[in-house]
Amino acid sequence: MKYYIGIDLGGTNVRTLLVDETGKSYSEVKDATERDNGPDYVCSKIIRQIESLDCSVCGGLENVQGIGIGVPGPVDTEHGVMIMATNLPGFENYPICEKLSSRFNLPVFIDNDANVAGLAEALLGAGKGKPTCYYVTISTGIGGAFIVNGQLVSGGRGHAGEIGNIIVKNNGYKFGGLNPGAVEGEASGTAITRKGKEILGEDKVAHAGDVFRLADEGDIKAQGIVDECISELATMFANIAHTVDPHCFIIGGGVMKSKRYFYDKLVEQFNSKIHVGMRGYIPLLETELEDCGAIGAAMLPMSKLK
Amino acid sequence: MKYYIGIDLGGTNVRTLLVDETGKSYSEVKDATERDNGPDYVCSKIIRQIESLDCSVCGGLENVQGIGIGVPGPVDTEHGVMIMATNLPGFENYPICEKLSSRFNLPVFIDNDANVAGLAEALLGAGKGKPTCYYVTISTGIGGAFIVNGQLVSGGRGHAGEIGNIIVKNNGYKFGGLNPGAVEGEASGTAITRKGKEILGEDKVAHAGDVFRLADEGDIKAQGIVDECISELATMFANIAHTVDPHCFIIGGGVMKSKRYFYDKLVEQFNSKIHVGMRGYIPLLETELEDCGAIGAAMLPMSKLK
Repeated sequence: MKYYIGIDLGGTNVRTLLVDETGKSYSEVKDATERDNGPDYVCSKIIRQIESLDCSVCGGLENVQGIGIGVPGPVDTEHGVMIMATNLPGFENYPICEKLSSRFNLPVFIDNDANVAGLAEALLGAGKGKPTCYYVTISTGIGGAFIVNGQLVSGGRGHAGEIGNIIVKNNGYKFGGLNPGAVEGEASGTAITRKGKEILGEDKVAHAGDVFRLADEGDIKAQGIVDECISELATMFANIAHTVDPHCFIIGGGVMKSKRYFYDKLVEQFNSKIHVGMRGYIPLLETELEDCGAIGAAMLPMSKLK
Repeated sequence: MKYYIGIDLGGTNVRTLLVDETGKSYSEVKDATERDNGPDYVCSKIIRQIESLDCSVCGGLENVQGIGIGVPGPVDTEHGVMIMATNLPGFENYPICEKLSSRFNLPVFIDNDANVAGLAEALLGAGKGKPTCYYVTISTGIGGAFIVNGQLVSGGRGHAGEIGNIIVKNNGYKFGGLNPGAVEGEASGTAITRKGKEILGEDKVAHAGDVFRLADEGDIKAQGIVDECISELATMFANIAHTVDPHCFIIGGGVMKSKRYFYDKLVEQFNSKIHVGMRGYIPLLETELEDCGAIGAAMLPMSKLK
């Protein structure tokens, strides 16, 4: 059995795990990130976390195979640094992998949090055994990850899976740095909530789930919002399918809590928007793992070193 | 040096090559396919072609490493059969790989013609040395191929690269079995010609090149067609980039003959439709190889057996 260390480095918390190759966790340390103290401070904190892990199951830290880090934002995987770090000030180009690698004399890999979550699902969750998986998370935003033969396709600039910026509507809503009509601006949890507040009223809609519930209760305007979002998500899934024809999609994120209100229609519309020869062959699976950021990060060295 | 046999099996001609691992060709046989005689007849013809190759450079057929076949249509690469074969009647599920493999006692691989052309470009042409390449051909139709670390991503149902069906326009033109507003119906050579004939007149436009030329000469309506097509192609490229973030695009096909009229604008618009952190990092390269179907097919066993 081989053992790996996974680090889920978020803007709020940082969590470090010792796991084996099946994803089983043996030891965990979690702390507030305290990002405002800067990258050197956070890096020291991670080093202490790693040193605090109980590695007796593998006879000590020296028998661990490697370290993986998941971070919020695009990553230059070749050089082991973040490209943009909105939620971790100072981490742009900060040599986090080099620092941990020289401290522990272990190989260290980094990728973004959606990618490592997708990797965990592909290797240990819904995608287990599939040659290729496209992971999609529909939540506040929309993100994804493409996994081929157990390896992440991170992209030349770490932007593979930035599917929230896929254009699904001409001259659509312009949100932040995204394209007008990008699917994240049209059909994310945030977008559904925004449309709900605009069309149904601020008092009726606190979150996307309210829009789905009202549609289910027969509100025609809410049904219009839901139908439009389903159509736009189906366009996004179809565009991805024509680009890489994955063996499955794996769908996670908060919007899946309302799955019963939209999933069947989404599957139907997705299949109507792909080539005849693909119809019925690409399952839209639900994620199986919970809170898999640190486990997915631990899968990075496993996938790279095999 | 290792040697491979590549077969470009088209609806009109079938061509068989002996090449080495650098893509250098040593012997070639080409015949009319005579597809109407059925798959057994065509298969016998391919067997004769292989037996006719001069394999003295590697000391005979028994020293060849493997055989690759490129075919027009989606392929089930796992079972080595075509899924649809509009241009090769009877080849659906026909065990072409099994037949050649048992006859010559060699591993045999099959993939569609756009995929093998993309593989050749990735390994020997414009993409040489790049970790990932997305090949795009804009011609009568629009197709593509995704190559990761020298391997084709063919997809679960052989439809990876069927990018002609990517939706770029809501409620757009409906062409054949494609989605309304699919990029192939809006911005392929055929689409540009169709729009040109409709808007500029049957007498002025024989092919897409005429539309580009008229736009260049100052015809406002022709400029409108060209601008719209560039915008739609840019949307397609951006959607692919957000899905897989390739290290480069490689663009081929007949429409590239009019490159000087649209390429700079396409690059500009593509970059305006992708995330800030990707801008300027994904080159849109032109293909370097000519007539690379059979060479690309020969690269299939090379990429699979390495």
